[in-house]
Amino acid sequence: MAVVRPDNAQQAKLLRLLRDDGPRSRAELGDAVELSRSRLAVELDRLADLGLVETAGLAASRGGRRSSIVRIARSIRFLGIDIGATSIDVAVTDGELRVLAREAEPVDVRQGPEVVIGRAMDLVGKLRATGTAPAFAGAGAGVPGPVSYAEGFPVSPPIMPGWNHFPVREAFSSELGCPVLVDNDVNIMALGEKHAGIARSVDDFLFVKIGTGVGCGIVVGGDVYRGVSGSAGDIGHIRVDDTGPMCTCGNTGCLEAFFGGTALARDALAAARTDRSPELAALLERTGALTAADVAAAAAVGDPVSVAMIREGGRRVGQVLASLVSFFNPGLVVIGGGVAGIGHALLAEIRGVVYRRSLPLATGNMPIVLSELGGEAGVVGAARLISDRVFSASRPAGQPPKAG
Amino acid sequence: MAVVRPDNAQQAKLLRLLRDDGPRSRAELGDAVELSRSRLAVELDRLADLGLVETAGLAASRGGRRSSIVRIARSIRFLGIDIGATSIDVAVTDGELRVLAREAEPVDVRQGPEVVIGRAMDLVGKLRATGTAPAFAGAGAGVPGPVSYAEGFPVSPPIMPGWNHFPVREAFSSELGCPVLVDNDVNIMALGEKHAGIARSVDDFLFVKIGTGVGCGIVVGGDVYRGVSGSAGDIGHIRVDDTGPMCTCGNTGCLEAFFGGTALARDALAAARTDRSPELAALLERTGALTAADVAAAAAVGDPVSVAMIREGGRRVGQVLASLVSFFNPGLVVIGGGVAGIGHALLAEIRGVVYRRSLPLATGNMPIVLSELGGEAGVVGAARLISDRVFSASRPAGQPPKAG
Repeated sequence: MAVVRPDNAQQAKLLRLLRDDGPRSRAELGDAVELSRSRLAVELDRLADLGLVETAGLAASRGGRRSSIVRIARSIRFLGIDIGATSIDVAVTDGELRVLAREAEPVDVRQGPEVVIGRAMDLVGKLRATGTAPAFAGAGAGVPGPVSYAEGFPVSPPIMPGWNHFPVREAFSSELGCPVLVDNDVNIMALGEKHAGIARSVDDFLFVKIGTGVGCGIVVGGDVYRGVSGSAGDIGHIRVDDTGPMCTCGNTGCLEAFFGGTALARDALAAARTDRSPELAALLERTGALTAADVAAAAAVGDPVSVAMIREGGRRVGQVLASLVSFFNPGLVVIGGGVAGIGHALLAEIRGVVYRRSLPLATGNMPIVLSELGGEAGVVGAARLISDRVFSASRPAGQPPKAG
Repeated sequence: MAVVRPDNAQQAKLLRLLRDDGPRSRAELGDAVELSRSRLAVELDRLADLGLVETAGLAASRGGRRSSIVRIARSIRFLGIDIGATSIDVAVTDGELRVLAREAEPVDVRQGPEVVIGRAMDLVGKLRATGTAPAFAGAGAGVPGPVSYAEGFPVSPPIMPGWNHFPVREAFSSELGCPVLVDNDVNIMALGEKHAGIARSVDDFLFVKIGTGVGCGIVVGGDVYRGVSGSAGDIGHIRVDDTGPMCTCGNTGCLEAFFGGTALARDALAAARTDRSPELAALLERTGALTAADVAAAAAVGDPVSVAMIREGGRRVGQVLASLVSFFNPGLVVIGGGVAGIGHALLAEIRGVVYRRSLPLATGNMPIVLSELGGEAGVVGAARLISDRVFSASRPAGQPPKAG
């Protein structure tokens, strides 16, 4: 499939405006991009020729001739793939990144890239069977570990054995026949929350994911900041104590060795087996295993051991976040990921520590909130990631179009 | 004095190239900015008309006609002002930000804005008397506290009584009759190190200042990142312990209550008075007061109490930095400020902790180094700050020039 992208920066800006704000009249678009009427017409005609935009009726009159309404072509489809430690989510979106269909299933990322990518492609097959997506303009994919964004593969991911340097981008790209970008799962969740969630109007914010592990997406000026080797935001291995439980990374004292899905399951099991928590012991008896959700359930019915685990975890996360908030001075902190489903008890603890320990100037106007998109943040963000690439100029600014 | 700025983004880009890389032939400039020969000539002619550039002879032949060499006009002068807790530094630079003359004197910032700004203007008078600076194209100023960059004044600065919301930018601007920008002193030091020091080729780095207090300048993509309320990098008040000495900010457990010029002087005095350190007691006897420099001197002759103070301080700074390095994944960490003059004993301790406690992926290729510019980083960075403003387009991209 031929990859279609806009010619120049003006066209790219028009596409992103239509993606983010929906259909607009030509008059409104002209105001927004500061182009003359004739120049705007040239750029929009070109985008229509490329099949990227189409007209959708006439706008209400602003006094003179009625202006026609322009929108992203209805046929455009993006694919978002969110590979977590224990699940895969895939979704097909339209050009405005609205989810048209979504499929998910549990999977263990430790089964390795061939199995997991195969399962993801099976889910994509199901999406295609719905008829909503004959072809994709591009696909974004998130994986639960550090990624070399430029190269499109994971780098020494602690919880993804077999994935180190596996060419995830090329694997999906050759299966799908469209451009693909791969990033850390927390970064795409942050982008999703920026595009359609609670961070929509905020340019500088942190998205803290508390799932199997703990990670952070950093958004600076509306874009993901990845750091010089792609590991920015990897806060799960910040050392919060000189001693403590062994972490998957091989060190002791890491934040996520104290708190997160894996740590909660471990602590819950210990509490159940030593009879410190009758509630957890009963849950273990019933299901044969314990998860963070069981701790949340036990806490909800007042189990003091489970309440203490959540408080202690929130306190640890809050201590790390307090330092990061003083350092980074974000406009918003969003808490997401599976364990964030524990909800307000956890949030209250995190808030208490951050507001007490960060610089007043940094927290004066900085909400700490739960993710709005929940499980959908990743797939929407993955679609956003690739749409930014597809809706960018195919040649650098200032360079003339190639002849022919 | 009328403020002269380039018309458009191309002209601004040409000026910054000439500022950062020095004189260039027209042929080289054309390559660098991707402009046609005729368009380049138009833009350079306009810059020459504005008095911003001039020609400086002919370049060596590249085969055809010899290309003329272009440079920033020799007459252009910027002023850098670096107000610290205990000193003022001012310098005049040329358009390539080379320091032509510099004046400094001790001053206590607690004397308040009228006195301190008056003293700074006295030093500027001395610079002017050298004849190097008949007029300034612009001035940058740094102050030792949080600054509202957009408004040009300090906001609740803990060690600057009387300065809260004082219009520093307007005060200098009306005295100097040129555009002025005001920023936190650590941010301008980071910019100085970026322009002419050890961070010259690095786009994402941290500049950690250990002076009277402790602060951090954050550079993202070559520009200072200030956060949503201007307090980004204010790491001196990160809580490193639940107890500890009282900080100037009124809390306990802040990093700079444990380490920095003020903390070292306090601990040195205690060690001298309780006879734990004969070296420090002798120094106190001789001079009547103790500073961080005395601790460094005592450590250099082997005083175990002073050595322990520096180690302990380096360990505290290293612990905070280890978390920030995991979070931010910078390409470089530069250590500067007066107390950094203690040198390699301190640096070794910081390095040890950061390399041991940060994520390997983040530290794999991340040097931790001492500032190269030392006391000159602030004034060069202040000149850089205002030159970025002066060498930016006077109207937004895509807008036609005003008639007349």
